[in-house]
Amino acid sequence: MCKLEEIHSPHDIKHLNKKELTDLCGQLRQKMIDTVSRTGGHLSSNLGTVELTVALHRVFDTPHDVIVWDVGHQCYAHKLLTDRYADFDTLRQQGGVSGFPKPEESVHDSFITGHSSTSISAANGIAKAKTLTGEGGYTVAVIGDGALTGGLAYEGLSNAGRSDDRLLVILNDNQMSISRNVGFVARYLSHQRSRVKYVRRKRRLFRILERLPLIGKPLIAVLQNTKKRLKRTLFPNTSYFENMGFYYMGPVDGHDLDDLNEALLAAKSIGRPVLLHIDTVKGKGCTFAEKNPDTYHGISRFDVQTGEPVKGGDSFSAHFGQTLCDLAQEDARIVAVTAAMIKGTCLENFAARYPARFFDTGIAEEHAVTFSSGMASGGLLPVFAVYSTFLQRSYDQLVNDTSIMNNHIVLAIDRAGVVPDDGETHQGIYDVAMLATIPNTTLFAPSNYKELELHLRQALYDTPGIAAVRYPKGPQPEVLAEYEPSYKAFDWLDDKGRDLLVITYGRTYGDALTVCRQRQRNGHRTGLLKINRILPLPDEVVEIAAGYSCVLLLEETGRRGGIGELLGSRLAQSGFAGHYAVKAIDVTLGACTTAQGLEAIELDIPGISAFIKAHAEGKNGE
Amino acid sequence: MCKLEEIHSPHDIKHLNKKELTDLCGQLRQKMIDTVSRTGGHLSSNLGTVELTVALHRVFDTPHDVIVWDVGHQCYAHKLLTDRYADFDTLRQQGGVSGFPKPEESVHDSFITGHSSTSISAANGIAKAKTLTGEGGYTVAVIGDGALTGGLAYEGLSNAGRSDDRLLVILNDNQMSISRNVGFVARYLSHQRSRVKYVRRKRRLFRILERLPLIGKPLIAVLQNTKKRLKRTLFPNTSYFENMGFYYMGPVDGHDLDDLNEALLAAKSIGRPVLLHIDTVKGKGCTFAEKNPDTYHGISRFDVQTGEPVKGGDSFSAHFGQTLCDLAQEDARIVAVTAAMIKGTCLENFAARYPARFFDTGIAEEHAVTFSSGMASGGLLPVFAVYSTFLQRSYDQLVNDTSIMNNHIVLAIDRAGVVPDDGETHQGIYDVAMLATIPNTTLFAPSNYKELELHLRQALYDTPGIAAVRYPKGPQPEVLAEYEPSYKAFDWLDDKGRDLLVITYGRTYGDALTVCRQRQRNGHRTGLLKINRILPLPDEVVEIAAGYSCVLLLEETGRRGGIGELLGSRLAQSGFAGHYAVKAIDVTLGACTTAQGLEAIELDIPGISAFIKAHAEGKNGE
Repeated sequence: MCKLEEIHSPHDIKHLNKKELTDLCGQLRQKMIDTVSRTGGHLSSNLGTVELTVALHRVFDTPHDVIVWDVGHQCYAHKLLTDRYADFDTLRQQGGVSGFPKPEESVHDSFITGHSSTSISAANGIAKAKTLTGEGGYTVAVIGDGALTGGLAYEGLSNAGRSDDRLLVILNDNQMSISRNVGFVARYLSHQRSRVKYVRRKRRLFRILERLPLIGKPLIAVLQNTKKRLKRTLFPNTSYFENMGFYYMGPVDGHDLDDLNEALLAAKSIGRPVLLHIDTVKGKGCTFAEKNPDTYHGISRFDVQTGEPVKGGDSFSAHFGQTLCDLAQEDARIVAVTAAMIKGTCLENFAARYPARFFDTGIAEEHAVTFSSGMASGGLLPVFAVYSTFLQRSYDQLVNDTSIMNNHIVLAIDRAGVVPDDGETHQGIYDVAMLATIPNTTLFAPSNYKELELHLRQALYDTPGIAAVRYPKGPQPEVLAEYEPSYKAFDWLDDKGRDLLVITYGRTYGDALTVCRQRQRNGHRTGLLKINRILPLPDEVVEIAAGYSCVLLLEETGRRGGIGELLGSRLAQSGFAGHYAVKAIDVTLGACTTAQGLEAIELDIPGISAFIKAHAEGKNGE
Repeated sequence: MCKLEEIHSPHDIKHLNKKELTDLCGQLRQKMIDTVSRTGGHLSSNLGTVELTVALHRVFDTPHDVIVWDVGHQCYAHKLLTDRYADFDTLRQQGGVSGFPKPEESVHDSFITGHSSTSISAANGIAKAKTLTGEGGYTVAVIGDGALTGGLAYEGLSNAGRSDDRLLVILNDNQMSISRNVGFVARYLSHQRSRVKYVRRKRRLFRILERLPLIGKPLIAVLQNTKKRLKRTLFPNTSYFENMGFYYMGPVDGHDLDDLNEALLAAKSIGRPVLLHIDTVKGKGCTFAEKNPDTYHGISRFDVQTGEPVKGGDSFSAHFGQTLCDLAQEDARIVAVTAAMIKGTCLENFAARYPARFFDTGIAEEHAVTFSSGMASGGLLPVFAVYSTFLQRSYDQLVNDTSIMNNHIVLAIDRAGVVPDDGETHQGIYDVAMLATIPNTTLFAPSNYKELELHLRQALYDTPGIAAVRYPKGPQPEVLAEYEPSYKAFDWLDDKGRDLLVITYGRTYGDALTVCRQRQRNGHRTGLLKINRILPLPDEVVEIAAGYSCVLLLEETGRRGGIGELLGSRLAQSGFAGHYAVKAIDVTLGACTTAQGLEAIELDIPGISAFIKAHAEGKNGE
């Protein structure tokens, strides 16, 4: 019997027999469950695509052929079959195997993913390059029905279908968008599945007619004639994908290796873009994941026997969800919007309590913003809860559909700053820079739960235009648990001298406070200024900073376009002649824990302490 | 007979008879043609929606009912019927009537547009607000088939179809996406139109069958039974829009006032989201516009008799198109991508000469970037030519699908800085700020045609990652016509003293040079530094600037996140103690000519001169 650990390349599975392959699928599942129970990760989606991955690697030859995994949360089997078994225990850990496809990691990973709905566009480009360069080979995009709710997937289908390249799009239909009841895709795919039943019924009717004397044959002829006309006029419309220009195949049982093999071979022979629709079960082969695919979609560590998750603690997200529920009870104008992140943004209670005022748009961040702006123009108070990294998709909708009209929408920006486990595609490092460029925009950065509540109220009731609140994944800093919000745009604390001023905001304030207190205990005068409303940057912050001889800004966001740059520019224009330095994120941050991430960007206690010391010494002769 | 100039509100057309309405449509067309011949504007699309607009304003009551015009390039008749006739001669002129819907201008303009594919999402939000607030009224989105190629429209349909609000989406099918052969939408709509023919054929068949003795009736019964089954299983698939959750009506003749009236009244009675498909002719009622709807889509001034356009001169865009053609002849890896802006970006010759290497994605900027990145990863050299304002839609695709992998794509950013005529939704003021936040990104800013050619070569061959070249609409500054590019990242010119340094880039360099030469002739020492590669900002530029006592940066882009902010921040961190000031765009810039726009942002010769004088006086005692 073949052993998974002995497989180092897809070549090693080409000649396995059915029994060996079935057994291999079992081993892949076992390895995933064991690993994810310890590391956390995407379980349900990976369990659902085991047979597909095995079949793909038998029929296609990566890296000559290319597979683009949409979102990438179904690539574990692919990784295990492409020489990453030995390191798989390091999944989603610092320096370990990434939870998403990563070209740096393997020649078999052609294109990075992590954000949804990109695979068809990328595959369209790769296939086109193969055609034009004459390099040859097939390009395959694997995309789930959930990812099809994103507009980019539609743009990709519409364009890729016009090409004449060797392109296969595999629609992995695990009925996720159905359970979530997200619009068109769900409805369309469910009809598509029922077509199989129609074909069976039609055959039965014809068999009965054949037996009728006299009338039977002519009737069939008429029916078939009608059918032809129907086909010409109706049938071309029956397949959304055929209208897109794809040759449509399916649905095929996505857990049947023989059927998959046959379908993939057939698809390969067609010579123009093919869409192969397969049905899979999320969590397949793991009782608790099959029962609760949503829970085990992206999961933290869990007990491998019972599936019981290792409990996380309190979080900014949970406090946001609770606060919004409370506010919504007082104010019927408040509505909540999410783009398929109901759990992650802790809007489950809101959705249950106010179903008519809750909107899950599917993976459609652009729509979510324009829709919110429309609701705002009609007198509602929309709150769009979104991960920082996914807000990147809404830039134009914030600028053109919201800011220009000064429509009032609230953004609850979750996962701001360092984001654990998911790596470079999920870090929340662009939201400050994006929002800093948009007029009529206010951004609050709470450092603890109480401030989050306060800022959410301020964003809803005291702020025109785009009012955003950014907060990190995870709990408030311990040192700030009892900290009272000041209701001011900034707080200037501790030392009101002229020598050294440390400015910061958000979660970083916790460690900065600790470091400054230590310094003061050691006799080093250190001013500390916490900005609560980071955009627009309060003029007084610039004035206060300009009065110090050494100003240090610490921020948990990308350096480019951040508050550090903005303050620096304002200081330069104010005639400031002191020393100014910024500590922000300017390294590519792969998978890590939050603590490791903060260490890597030097925004933990030792990092902050060293940064202040280095700069203060140069200035104050400590 | 009713006179257009006497209509001040939609109320005034409610009781007109058919003849009067037909005559009104003629007057609307005449007014549009006359005006646009003098002002320039969108002609074809506006001529095509005259009857629709009249019908809408008869059946609905704005502002209680709301109409959202997608893109907004079909709102002229709406403006003429809502009290903007008297000012219509000021169309697209500074302080005049905007070429797009603008809530500031009229209560009948509910939502700003200008960028494509937003109307369904906005209308979805507005309709939802009407439901939840109990305010009542209908919400109508009018969207063309071209705008349907954008992913946001798909997200909007998919979400709006799930709602139970009083929402009407009017698909204005003028077969633009067909002439352009852009994928799915074209194919789908052409099938949809042929359905009408099928229904007619079916009726004919049944009439024949009825006459057959014995067999006739049972045959019909069988057929109808089959039909029912077909309907249950096939028919729900036949309408893309029905799958989206819409009640589908149409196609209706969009130039027949009676049919439109009837269809709109029917749509209003249905009580759930309706999609009404109407057929219109672009340019309707104007011979030359009907014949060449593309030419008269967005047009400069023209001869009202012959339709002959008043010729524009040379432009950066034309030089880009020519240069890319030349380069493509030498290098088969070069491919060109546009998102429905083939004329505007001057890629027509490229498309004709290299059809297999040219891709018009439709209005799908997100796809265009991810597709380009895919092609890059396959060894091609993609050049995406895009207006600055539309690049805003691709932020996440630049960050996540391109920059993280350091894939090499070239962006030819047209319409950077002040954009004439189209107003606030089309100004090119965010591209620098956006790109400044993205790692692995280089941005060139040519000041004349020769530099454009040079930078395009540098972007293609000497620059990894995202390599962008930004240039304005229109011609090079006259003073720079013979200016030779230096091949360096920056040019430090004229005065190499220590007092006053003016830094700038791009088109602004022309006027800055003129002003500095004037100053020098008048005995004021004035250093001038032109940055050619504005991102990453060359370290030497910071070092040189830090050596002056007064540094002034001029840039034709938004202040927030621009090079002025970046340089300011770098100066503050370098210990610079001089005077620093930035002149950039920080006003909302409505419709204007280029010259008026540059005057408004004070980046023309008088503006630059006054700015330098004001700051230099403070420092140098001039």
